[in-house]
Amino acid sequence: MSQKVWSGRFQKQPEDWVDEFNASIPFDQQLVDEDIEGSIAHVTMLMDNKILTSEEGNKILGGLHSLADKAKSKELTYSTSLEDIHCNLEKLLTDEVGEIGGKLHTGRSRNDQVATDMHLYLKRRVLEIIESIEELQENLLVQAEEHVYTIMPGYTHLQRAQPISFSHHLMAYFWMLERDKDRMKNGLERIDLCPLGAGALAGTTYPIDRLQTAEILGFQGIYENSMDAVSDRDFILEFLSNSSILMMHLSRFAEELILWTSQEFNFVELDDTFTTGSSIMPQKKNPDMAELVRGKTGRVYGNLFSLLTVLKGLPLAYNKDMQEDKEGMFDTVETTKGSLKIFAGMVGTMKVNKASMEKAVDEDFSNATELADYLATKGIPFRQAHEIVGQLVLYCIQNNCYLKDLSISQFKEASTLIENDIYDVLSPKMAVERRNSYGGTGFDQVKEQLIKAKKKLKQGELSS
Amino acid sequence: MSQKVWSGRFQKQPEDWVDEFNASIPFDQQLVDEDIEGSIAHVTMLMDNKILTSEEGNKILGGLHSLADKAKSKELTYSTSLEDIHCNLEKLLTDEVGEIGGKLHTGRSRNDQVATDMHLYLKRRVLEIIESIEELQENLLVQAEEHVYTIMPGYTHLQRAQPISFSHHLMAYFWMLERDKDRMKNGLERIDLCPLGAGALAGTTYPIDRLQTAEILGFQGIYENSMDAVSDRDFILEFLSNSSILMMHLSRFAEELILWTSQEFNFVELDDTFTTGSSIMPQKKNPDMAELVRGKTGRVYGNLFSLLTVLKGLPLAYNKDMQEDKEGMFDTVETTKGSLKIFAGMVGTMKVNKASMEKAVDEDFSNATELADYLATKGIPFRQAHEIVGQLVLYCIQNNCYLKDLSISQFKEASTLIENDIYDVLSPKMAVERRNSYGGTGFDQVKEQLIKAKKKLKQGELSS
Amino acid sequence: MSQKVWSGRFQKQPEDWVDEFNASIPFDQQLVDEDIEGSIAHVTMLMDNKILTSEEGNKILGGLHSLADKAKSKELTYSTSLEDIHCNLEKLLTDEVGEIGGKLHTGRSRNDQVATDMHLYLKRRVLEIIESIEELQENLLVQAEEHVYTIMPGYTHLQRAQPISFSHHLMAYFWMLERDKDRMKNGLERIDLCPLGAGALAGTTYPIDRLQTAEILGFQGIYENSMDAVSDRDFILEFLSNSSILMMHLSRFAEELILWTSQEFNFVELDDTFTTGSSIMPQKKNPDMAELVRGKTGRVYGNLFSLLTVLKGLPLAYNKDMQEDKEGMFDTVETTKGSLKIFAGMVGTMKVNKASMEKAVDEDFSNATELADYLATKGIPFRQAHEIVGQLVLYCIQNNCYLKDLSISQFKEASTLIENDIYDVLSPKMAVERRNSYGGTGFDQVKEQLIKAKKKLKQGELSS
Amino acid sequence: MSQKVWSGRFQKQPEDWVDEFNASIPFDQQLVDEDIEGSIAHVTMLMDNKILTSEEGNKILGGLHSLADKAKSKELTYSTSLEDIHCNLEKLLTDEVGEIGGKLHTGRSRNDQVATDMHLYLKRRVLEIIESIEELQENLLVQAEEHVYTIMPGYTHLQRAQPISFSHHLMAYFWMLERDKDRMKNGLERIDLCPLGAGALAGTTYPIDRLQTAEILGFQGIYENSMDAVSDRDFILEFLSNSSILMMHLSRFAEELILWTSQEFNFVELDDTFTTGSSIMPQKKNPDMAELVRGKTGRVYGNLFSLLTVLKGLPLAYNKDMQEDKEGMFDTVETTKGSLKIFAGMVGTMKVNKASMEKAVDEDFSNATELADYLATKGIPFRQAHEIVGQLVLYCIQNNCYLKDLSISQFKEASTLIENDIYDVLSPKMAVERRNSYGGTGFDQVKEQLIKAKKKLKQGELSS
Repeated sequence: MSQKVWSGRFQKQPEDWVDEFNASIPFDQQLVDEDIEGSIAHVTMLMDNKILTSEEGNKILGGLHSLADKAKSKELTYSTSLEDIHCNLEKLLTDEVGEIGGKLHTGRSRNDQVATDMHLYLKRRVLEIIESIEELQENLLVQAEEHVYTIMPGYTHLQRAQPISFSHHLMAYFWMLERDKDRMKNGLERIDLCPLGAGALAGTTYPIDRLQTAEILGFQGIYENSMDAVSDRDFILEFLSNSSILMMHLSRFAEELILWTSQEFNFVELDDTFTTGSSIMPQKKNPDMAELVRGKTGRVYGNLFSLLTVLKGLPLAYNKDMQEDKEGMFDTVETTKGSLKIFAGMVGTMKVNKASMEKAVDEDFSNATELADYLATKGIPFRQAHEIVGQLVLYCIQNNCYLKDLSISQFKEASTLIENDIYDVLSPKMAVERRNSYGGTGFDQVKEQLIKAKKKLKQGELSS
Repeated sequence: MSQKVWSGRFQKQPEDWVDEFNASIPFDQQLVDEDIEGSIAHVTMLMDNKILTSEEGNKILGGLHSLADKAKSKELTYSTSLEDIHCNLEKLLTDEVGEIGGKLHTGRSRNDQVATDMHLYLKRRVLEIIESIEELQENLLVQAEEHVYTIMPGYTHLQRAQPISFSHHLMAYFWMLERDKDRMKNGLERIDLCPLGAGALAGTTYPIDRLQTAEILGFQGIYENSMDAVSDRDFILEFLSNSSILMMHLSRFAEELILWTSQEFNFVELDDTFTTGSSIMPQKKNPDMAELVRGKTGRVYGNLFSLLTVLKGLPLAYNKDMQEDKEGMFDTVETTKGSLKIFAGMVGTMKVNKASMEKAVDEDFSNATELADYLATKGIPFRQAHEIVGQLVLYCIQNNCYLKDLSISQFKEASTLIENDIYDVLSPKMAVERRNSYGGTGFDQVKEQLIKAKKKLKQGELSS
Repeated sequence: MSQKVWSGRFQKQPEDWVDEFNASIPFDQQLVDEDIEGSIAHVTMLMDNKILTSEEGNKILGGLHSLADKAKSKELTYSTSLEDIHCNLEKLLTDEVGEIGGKLHTGRSRNDQVATDMHLYLKRRVLEIIESIEELQENLLVQAEEHVYTIMPGYTHLQRAQPISFSHHLMAYFWMLERDKDRMKNGLERIDLCPLGAGALAGTTYPIDRLQTAEILGFQGIYENSMDAVSDRDFILEFLSNSSILMMHLSRFAEELILWTSQEFNFVELDDTFTTGSSIMPQKKNPDMAELVRGKTGRVYGNLFSLLTVLKGLPLAYNKDMQEDKEGMFDTVETTKGSLKIFAGMVGTMKVNKASMEKAVDEDFSNATELADYLATKGIPFRQAHEIVGQLVLYCIQNNCYLKDLSISQFKEASTLIENDIYDVLSPKMAVERRNSYGGTGFDQVKEQLIKAKKKLKQGELSS
Repeated sequence: MSQKVWSGRFQKQPEDWVDEFNASIPFDQQLVDEDIEGSIAHVTMLMDNKILTSEEGNKILGGLHSLADKAKSKELTYSTSLEDIHCNLEKLLTDEVGEIGGKLHTGRSRNDQVATDMHLYLKRRVLEIIESIEELQENLLVQAEEHVYTIMPGYTHLQRAQPISFSHHLMAYFWMLERDKDRMKNGLERIDLCPLGAGALAGTTYPIDRLQTAEILGFQGIYENSMDAVSDRDFILEFLSNSSILMMHLSRFAEELILWTSQEFNFVELDDTFTTGSSIMPQKKNPDMAELVRGKTGRVYGNLFSLLTVLKGLPLAYNKDMQEDKEGMFDTVETTKGSLKIFAGMVGTMKVNKASMEKAVDEDFSNATELADYLATKGIPFRQAHEIVGQLVLYCIQNNCYLKDLSISQFKEASTLIENDIYDVLSPKMAVERRNSYGGTGFDQVKEQLIKAKKKLKQGELSS
């Protein structure tokens, strides 16, 4: 067992099994690159401000660069009894450069160090997630452009409501993802802040330059209060919350893909590569990936709730409870990125069964609103028009036909205002076309929407 | 029982107990002002675009204004069998203006109507919450300005760590609240959007002008996709998440107030008005309000998770499950505002027991880091310095004294580098003063921080 | 404002708005019956043990009975400044019987009093919920008995898997509900315990008889430790957790009803009374109640997580945070009971579309396992059989036919072991019938299951 | 890439990165022992029922026993493209015994197989957790027996309330843990059920004997409905909920240990082995383990909420989402067991600072209730007595003294009923001793409690 960095006042050290319970190295080793990078910035600053001599500083820097190389090639090995990535690296550094390595920790504490690592780490991952969102948006756009004129039933309460363009339906997800991106970007304002130099909680007596380390590390700003700097985990909570909302969106989309690929709907076929079979039922082609993403929503929600619970009621400043901030963050990064990639693939390769969609819309009552609007336009208060059409629908159901099957005289019995042009009005294509209000499913509106969406996407890529 | 607005195709209507389960009127009546306001904007637009004649429109507007007045004076009564605030108001309108009232719903659905109500409602409440945050920040500033030179132990792991300025400690909460405000403002970008005109899900066939209604209602923008407009509840989730983080901050502050007012800490006394007693123990003065706020954190977390659960896996567009979005939102608004107000009062009136704080800091080892830094400055690698001091602390504990009580020769035994100036270095006041790195607890830094904070607060007020 | 019961050591009392934040009377008035009942038991015991004289006791009892009557006829009015139901009732009692009313609180604290109220309350509500579960089970049984021979596709991954009896499908919910009942009953072991007499936290110096009060109140046992008695909210958490699992079951059933009533599945029609329409689309018949129950799952989950959060990290014994235990409990009781009642109604009145189910099962590949089992029975390892059938299915899909449409020579090409009897094997009815393993969907098994289920239900009713 | 067990009807297989997203083998390999055991039972039954010949069966059994040995010695290697532990083991079996291995899956599906594995796994882990609870209870008892006469302040609202025996305080946790055990045992009723033989969802056409496999595997019962058997995850949810409540208890205890080891309370010292230091502050001895356990409460809550979310709204029967049931279960098992072990160690080795506790209780107002009860016993209604004492406390605070410091004439001024015996009544020891109601803190009661607790513990051990 290695000696602890804090062993001075202790008469014995934890037993191995306690060390194992306590140690974060099994998971915080994911921060190795960020930790070394932070140390390099810190030492550079210490030298520039004469807190370390050039000789000292350069020796340590040499060691750190060597560790960075070894980290890249996975040559570093860690010890549980050294608790965390910080103490492990400090020990490895001392192995490289000797006792002088102990000066690395001058004017710094593990409390500000680990916070810095996490800010750096999360900033990078969030940028990657934003890119993954854009990939999915691009694939959505490709499908949406192809299916402007593909008509399907639009649903509310999972009951057929009104005919819509499939493109319009897909674009609803485009805009949800756009908000997800905006939230992730808003969150970056609070991730992109440097806590380094806050010390254990109160700052330090060394004449450090926090602005310099922040600049070296590429941060946009620094924390104004050292106690806040080491106690704050808002930036992770916000990320978990934004990811939860994102996963919720994917869970809705997943639900729809699962519905659409059922034998009953039969609107979409997923590519073989995104489905699996059954060990027992030879005919099965299951939308496993969509189901998994829907399931993984629970995982991300759980991570959010874990950290909210951890932080509830903690006094300032650092408490060990906060070590529980990492695994949920790592898991959420991986889950969110993975789910986006899977969706980009599924959406990009899915085949749309236009015939099946159109048959659906042809044999239902989703054109009933057309008739009500038709009557209202002719001056009947909408409420009465609605009542009249409702009764016609009931009549049709009882007589096993659809509205379009009624004769003009049957229509006139319901209302003398109905003329022969009603049959055009009832056609699904017309129903879609005429819904031409801003943001509606009318073909012209959908095409406008696609133009705006492409512009949005291009702007996003330019700015990042 | 009143006739339903959708009764046409039905052969019977729900029984009363089913109506009660189904109805949202017991809680969505809180949206009465917003609902009438939305209707006024809608009718105005319908008139301007000749969808209603002036005569029709003005008659309806007259009725709506009359309802608005009655709503203000609490004269309206609602019926459960009319389900929700929208149907209730439409019925009340028809009572006022006759059958023509049925034209109000032209080109609109309850789906876009309720979404509009909630956007309007939440926008206003969030602005009020931002104001309440600022009130608390102001009270924090007043206390912080008074206590720059009040020294107390700073804690990590609830163990005394390093002496700090009480002002510095309070200011940590100032910055947390500042982030809460920023998050609320970011969220407004997505709240301040108008869904009106999206219809049931697909837009409408009427030549409506969505930009006009949005402008009348004071919205900054409109939704680009009608299906998204009626299905989106992100803006509420984001508000619930931002409120959860805010409540988490208050729960931490509450925990500290509870600790500080305990007999053991005795750092702070709360004003009688924010405490209560016991029905059985005559001596008790309990920090009930702080405890309640800490407890109400659970309530807001619960509201967040309720809605996350509700939305998980819902297909587009509107589903009745989404009716469950309201109560948690109302409750969170009330809880968050109430908790902030309570805290502003508690913080503004609390009395700080300076003597008790200073006694604490005088009789502990929170100056041990000073000695380690002292040695490190003299050239000993920090890790060795730490080890030396750790052993001195252990010696003191075993001999029932503090570091300042050691003689110079005892110090020299530990390290010959220690000189007589060590006694100054060990004084808590000096320890605080010397922690003068940016954002540290050093008095000068704290004063800088206060200046920045006041500036921030003023900016916020100007911009809002 | 009334004087507080604890005003002695205070120099001022809370302002009104603080009282409002603090008070629980707006919701804990639901405990009025239990509170009076607990007081009656307490006073009876105090008299019997000579802690109160008969005269005192009887006078107080008279007052309490009078309050009980007034509570029944809703004649009591409460004051927010009196905080809670306990202080309100004590004040009302004193109004009835004079100063002597102050002796009611002898040997009791609000801490053990409120815990007693909640134990009493929840015990009764859980028994009611168990009854509501049984009503739903009964309605399930009625439908299940009618539909033993109704064949439908069984699903995994929402893909058709194997033909099943509709009765078998419904019975899966019967057994889930049976577990829900068992959990509720297990929970009663910990609800049915009396905390009365634990005092504020430490017991009391009066010679009270806790067994007597427990017996009067009908409790099965008492708490062994006074601090535990007043701090414990496990019994509520357990109830919330059991309710969450129950609601999860209903959410699954709700999802299925929503699917089955869609135009695509068309397996079931809900009675008009459990559906609603649209304000804009005249044809809509929405399964609102099923959707609402699915949504309300989130509400109950949220209540569970609220209380888990509240209790996390609270030191012993009572803390004011715990006042937040009530609203979520009340809400969960109401939601769970309401949802069960709605489901009992929906299930009892739904119409099953047998023709549609049978058509579905006739035109799919859910009989593919039959063919694989057929081959395996003839000696081909199951894995190879599976492979052979998989390829036949693919062939059929590409040639737009089903397995039953293949000629015997086509079958023999795939495997020479296939004989003419294969056409019988492929019939859905045979597929169901032959799945006759214990608990399987085979008709005989299903009938066995129905017998066991009826027996279970009868036992439950006898024991309760 | 290995061939999938379901490849027949597919034209291509998932790409590697999709396999990785899909595969459960990285975590479900923890079920290897249970999976092999389940297969051995299944094959034994198939042989006994002539579904496999003895020759076939014995060959397969030989292979399975060989795999079991290799699993023990960690010799098995798994492939991601084989998805899960079931397919991996089947492939490994076929490598051992040839094509005949394919007959293992006769009459079984992965759906009932994985459910069986998890029931077996969880049953064992829950029994281990019950043992771990008992170890902690034993250590609590040892400390409690030593500290019957150690007096400390009892708290409500973290304000000193009434003097109590430290033993009484510790015993409160004993009874919480007793409930945790009871809940775990109740949960076993639903864990100890065998789903094997339910097939994919509908049972099987083979003449299997489900009772036999259940008996071989040591299960107490079997599922009555095959669809329920493969869809049910209640048993895991219930375990997660029970674990959440258990962790909540530990979080409360952890909070208290953290308070008690603070410089301010100084009631308890933890053994060095359960504490750690600071990398920067040499004096620190942090209660890290207690903090970690408090933090890990969030982790377990999160796991519960994850699975509740996953299951919400899933139609029957198996859906891939349910693969997300495992990691949270594994993590909760490990976290709960680890936390209990840490607590057993902490509690067993902690040193109690009796002097510090007694000093605390000597210099406070926690004896104020004694005076009120004293007055009430003399006939003053408790409410008036309370008021009188409250005013005396206020007087003392303003004059910087305690109740015991008042002269008899000062007492008499407050009430002439007070006699010289009041000084005895005010002594903390007497205050504890006299609180002798059942379950109270009186020494005799505490000793009774200890006897009952030891008996409970012995019973538990006998029964398990």
